[in-house]
Amino acid sequence: MAEDQSLPDFDDVKAASGRLLGQAVRTPVIEAPLLNEKARGRVLIKPECLQRTGSFKFRGGWNCISQLDKSEWPGGVVAYSSGNHAQGVAAAAQICGLPAVIVMPADTPQIKKDNTRRLGAEIVEYDRASQAREEIAAKLAGERKAALVPPFDHPDIIAGQGTAVMELIEELAARGDRLDQLIVPAGGGGLLAGSMLSAKALSPETQVYCAEPAGFDDHARSLATGARQINNKATGSICDALLSPQPGQLTFAINGPVLAGGLVVSDDEVRAAMRFAFSHLKLVVEPGGSVALAAILSGKIDTQDKSTGIILSGGNVDPGLFGETLIAA
Amino acid sequence: MAEDQSLPDFDDVKAASGRLLGQAVRTPVIEAPLLNEKARGRVLIKPECLQRTGSFKFRGGWNCISQLDKSEWPGGVVAYSSGNHAQGVAAAAQICGLPAVIVMPADTPQIKKDNTRRLGAEIVEYDRASQAREEIAAKLAGERKAALVPPFDHPDIIAGQGTAVMELIEELAARGDRLDQLIVPAGGGGLLAGSMLSAKALSPETQVYCAEPAGFDDHARSLATGARQINNKATGSICDALLSPQPGQLTFAINGPVLAGGLVVSDDEVRAAMRFAFSHLKLVVEPGGSVALAAILSGKIDTQDKSTGIILSGGNVDPGLFGETLIAA
Repeated sequence: MAEDQSLPDFDDVKAASGRLLGQAVRTPVIEAPLLNEKARGRVLIKPECLQRTGSFKFRGGWNCISQLDKSEWPGGVVAYSSGNHAQGVAAAAQICGLPAVIVMPADTPQIKKDNTRRLGAEIVEYDRASQAREEIAAKLAGERKAALVPPFDHPDIIAGQGTAVMELIEELAARGDRLDQLIVPAGGGGLLAGSMLSAKALSPETQVYCAEPAGFDDHARSLATGARQINNKATGSICDALLSPQPGQLTFAINGPVLAGGLVVSDDEVRAAMRFAFSHLKLVVEPGGSVALAAILSGKIDTQDKSTGIILSGGNVDPGLFGETLIAA
Repeated sequence: MAEDQSLPDFDDVKAASGRLLGQAVRTPVIEAPLLNEKARGRVLIKPECLQRTGSFKFRGGWNCISQLDKSEWPGGVVAYSSGNHAQGVAAAAQICGLPAVIVMPADTPQIKKDNTRRLGAEIVEYDRASQAREEIAAKLAGERKAALVPPFDHPDIIAGQGTAVMELIEELAARGDRLDQLIVPAGGGGLLAGSMLSAKALSPETQVYCAEPAGFDDHARSLATGARQINNKATGSICDALLSPQPGQLTFAINGPVLAGGLVVSDDEVRAAMRFAFSHLKLVVEPGGSVALAAILSGKIDTQDKSTGIILSGGNVDPGLFGETLIAA
């Protein structure tokens, strides 16, 4: 679907911001003295776990779906996702009064299915081992005359996700503050690309880094080689939100030329960041949402005497996993 | 100390708000679709767990301590608290460059001692069974020429705590929204009294309720009898932040005449609220901070077709207790 799309720019982010007014939460900017102390600089936190549906994904989903001509898409929308994108799309479709079908692996945790159904979506299951979710979604979209809402590689999705960093930089500017650097979690790179559009337009001197889980550092490796690299595995990190196989075509076209670097963190470093967010930020952050914080706490980037922005991208984590992470420490 | 103090009014809250600018976090107002659904109305959440030091207590502490004449108090400040007030006072004193001494029971959990020491305070321990903390604190204050910062029954403390609801009502007004009712957690009643000053000045038609843990419903019983009642026990609820023996003299003089009612919740209802906040708000809320949410979720108040404000007053909870609360569900 993305092949024939042109790249979005910051005007698209601004337009998305207008559409999101009154629908998305304008998440606050949080600063914690103890984190600043550890970073030996300032860390400005944008907690998208507080966003509607518990992650930034509602921003892109709403920006995409609210622009659809209902008469053109009687079947509503189709998306494939087992996680945050599913909930973002389901919520946006529900508000717009459009049916939503979400294609999910049969082995998706019950809690994620329940959350998605609660938002009014229909779930179509498939077998991970033998079926390709993109094909199932495309077939369903055709049969039902429904619009396919891809998870990251679409101009409207990228523009919507960019509103988080737009808000962050604008709020800091209003206080007379600015960012030396910004760290954004990356799976397919949609949030990163949108963030890049906002950062380069509003604060061109800010260096933008991505953070990824070890073993799923496709952005870091793509940056090093100059071409999109594919991860060697599909599972094997607790960061379930960041396991996309490779950077998107559109997203990497935006990110590749200007990304300052890729930071890679281990699952243990992620768990430590989740515990830190619990104890000192009072925020529930899911594993994939914690990678930028983990990068700072584990010393993967120099933050001394600098002002560093980070996005905590989501908080949809199973209570059992979260509880064990706290107790195991 | 409070005996000869006059009652604060809303002008004092406004003055406190000016002092807190740039020091306290202006916590956001959060709304969650699923909570609205359960309440069959709107619930507007003020998450003070995101406040500096993890609870609203920094507001009152800062308002009090930032007004002290340093030359008059060479010994800085003294407070007695094992929890949130200790951290609020320690942080405010640290920023003001004043020494702080906190009187704590010897059996206070290590994590709370550590958090308080990290903020630069000295801890003086006492034996709960044989010593009265008020006396120890008063003696220390005299010896060291330090100002005593009481936990709730002081005009500056009450005025500082009132800024949270002032922000809540102002932010809602800016969006064209208002509150039919407001639920505030009550221990000694400082947050409640400050909230009352703001609510009665800015939104006189809003009904203000307090929420308390079962067995520690001194406000509810005082309201029913018209005189300050004392709790029959000093321990026995997970809501460690709300176990003050009785309403304060100043706080009850403000609250008693205008409080719409007292809501009482069990520890199990509190645990359910903590889990709800985890799953659907992505917030870490401590037991005592959850009582207003618990009152709504357990049906202690009619919220249908109404707009109800609640304060989540703090998030300083032990990781082990929180983890067990999640896993036990």
